[in-house]
Amino acid sequence: MELELARELTVEAESKIVLLVMDGLGGLPHPETGRTELETAYTPHLDRLAKEGMCGLTVPVGPGITPGSGPGHLALFGYDPYRFQVGRGVLEALGIDFDLQPGDVAARGNFCTVDAQGLITDRRAGRIGTEKCMELCQKLRQARLEGVELFIEPVREHRFVLVLRGEGLSDQLADTDPQREGRPPLPATATAPEGESTARLVNDFLAQAATLLRDEAPANMLLLRGFAKRPHWPTMQEVFKLRAAAIAYYPMYRGLGKLVGMTPLPSGPRLEDAISSLRENWGRFDFFFLHYKATDTAGEDGDFDRKVEAIEAADKALPALVELEPDVLIVTGDHSTPAVLAGHSWHPVPIVIRARWARADACDAFNEVELQRGILGTFPAKDVLPLALAHAGRLKKFGA
Amino acid sequence: MELELARELTVEAESKIVLLVMDGLGGLPHPETGRTELETAYTPHLDRLAKEGMCGLTVPVGPGITPGSGPGHLALFGYDPYRFQVGRGVLEALGIDFDLQPGDVAARGNFCTVDAQGLITDRRAGRIGTEKCMELCQKLRQARLEGVELFIEPVREHRFVLVLRGEGLSDQLADTDPQREGRPPLPATATAPEGESTARLVNDFLAQAATLLRDEAPANMLLLRGFAKRPHWPTMQEVFKLRAAAIAYYPMYRGLGKLVGMTPLPSGPRLEDAISSLRENWGRFDFFFLHYKATDTAGEDGDFDRKVEAIEAADKALPALVELEPDVLIVTGDHSTPAVLAGHSWHPVPIVIRARWARADACDAFNEVELQRGILGTFPAKDVLPLALAHAGRLKKFGA
Repeated sequence: MELELARELTVEAESKIVLLVMDGLGGLPHPETGRTELETAYTPHLDRLAKEGMCGLTVPVGPGITPGSGPGHLALFGYDPYRFQVGRGVLEALGIDFDLQPGDVAARGNFCTVDAQGLITDRRAGRIGTEKCMELCQKLRQARLEGVELFIEPVREHRFVLVLRGEGLSDQLADTDPQREGRPPLPATATAPEGESTARLVNDFLAQAATLLRDEAPANMLLLRGFAKRPHWPTMQEVFKLRAAAIAYYPMYRGLGKLVGMTPLPSGPRLEDAISSLRENWGRFDFFFLHYKATDTAGEDGDFDRKVEAIEAADKALPALVELEPDVLIVTGDHSTPAVLAGHSWHPVPIVIRARWARADACDAFNEVELQRGILGTFPAKDVLPLALAHAGRLKKFGA
Repeated sequence: MELELARELTVEAESKIVLLVMDGLGGLPHPETGRTELETAYTPHLDRLAKEGMCGLTVPVGPGITPGSGPGHLALFGYDPYRFQVGRGVLEALGIDFDLQPGDVAARGNFCTVDAQGLITDRRAGRIGTEKCMELCQKLRQARLEGVELFIEPVREHRFVLVLRGEGLSDQLADTDPQREGRPPLPATATAPEGESTARLVNDFLAQAATLLRDEAPANMLLLRGFAKRPHWPTMQEVFKLRAAAIAYYPMYRGLGKLVGMTPLPSGPRLEDAISSLRENWGRFDFFFLHYKATDTAGEDGDFDRKVEAIEAADKALPALVELEPDVLIVTGDHSTPAVLAGHSWHPVPIVIRARWARADACDAFNEVELQRGILGTFPAKDVLPLALAHAGRLKKFGA
């Protein structure tokens, strides 16, 4: 549903919608057993949801497309992931809970190694430790730019975030990372005329950084990419008339929620933590996004057994969520992260929607194979929210 | 996936993709047995592919839309068949392997019969034989146009192709075929101002043709339609980073491949011939389009049993294809040609995709009924290539 149409059709109501995102939920069969992580896990509570609810598989972005965390979540929030794209610099800043202001320009930074000729010999400066990164960021904070406030914030290992704050800044800048060793770092260049003055400022910063880092080894230079401003999108309140909350332990996911107007609430790494927070804030919001990270982390690490455990741990916590009796309860993922691939993938993602007016289907277990038989079929993730709104009694009739 | 996005997301890889198009593959039940051509045929190798791979049905163009050969194939090549349309004149030229150059204008020609008043009495000149057609084309080659080279090439029976080659020609011309008998052939008229000088040239040709054919009977005049230039589309190499080959016995299908930058390779009418050619060229390409015509020809002839035989003959050849172990093997059709309809139809088309990271589904036979249970569901044919690219490790992550 286009957001313009959503603005017209949505109405306020007393109903509650809960969206539980088990990050990287979808999987692939283990080569020895032929069973996926979900098929392997003991999940009586998820299976019961599958029996009671509407089942299917979502396509996060498009057929064959492997989504990053941004598009995977935005689709579930009802925002077309092609139309609502968020730059790398912004995602990195969200990931460290940096409070980006309108007009700020953020970039992802890497410390790197250059030789005596200024050619890059290591784009990641030997993956220096996070403490070293913090020390180098502190050193870079000596840099000064006329009329611009600089923020240099460590992330992890060789990674940091650069934020420029001031009047008239532009994010129309190309990366300074040539993406290859044996070349010098590129100067900042504008990709549109309005980027020219900001490019000069960034080049001034790069010159100062080169001096400040000169005697550091191996991290004696830096590379910048993904210059971006925080986008200003219509909020879920404006578009869907939902007071929305983001209950996520990791900053990036709270940040993604904030981009669409969600209020961040405290959480912890366990699903129990998120559910406690949910319970405490039950009366204040209409829509709750709960983020559970452990499934993705295990998948990314290629650890099949740990992903199975992460699924089982979430399953144990589920009854506390069901007991709250949300009008619409959705359990799904933002993308698949099969342990056998040790990374995100394009495979459709399991979903169940439990709601009073759901039509029954034949599914009685929550896994990739069984859910193929579900009534929802395989469908775009951006259609999840309109379905939730309908089942929550929050959509008027279209047309007379 | 829009081609613009494909350009961004595709990467080069070592992997091989094979697309076997069994033309007109989909069918309908025989009125006596209630079984389709595929259900009737003995196809152990296709059935094995269905067991091992991801199954479903494709919608070539849109629900209810019966595709011609052009859109049916272009969708499978990853080109949106609405956006990438090819004119009739070009398709006819491709069909006789005529090497259309940029700027050439091609039209489909029909010899027809006109009476003493110049009114059409038979739009197909009594379907004269192909030899007569060749003789008449030879005669027409006496026509001369100022500054324009003319090609008049026989096709079959009353059909031929006219190609104009020269500077500044336009294809913005209406058909000269009034589509009814009892009327005179229409003069060529421009459908846009830039077509006016070309319309004058075509009318000059028509006047000369009338004179040259005056004493011929029944083919004493001609009708032209589908004026078109060869489109210039981005190639599969440019968009998908695929070195692509077209292995097709019939010129039109080689031509369709050439329109998207495929290299034509030799073939024969049997699938074995195509597979031999594939094997010989295995190292030179990333993507192989194999075309098998016999299924469609039998369907068009309304010959149910011969279509069953054509399917069984292809099935026998399949192991040689599977043995090559392409990373992604797709078997499907460009549209359905049910023998009971003796023509193309709008019915979804069986498909199986075999690849390492495929999720299992419940299908264990390759036919229209069984494949409805497949994991791919019923989906647009233009999504086949993005799925193939994903499974071939040729797509980067979308968004951070």
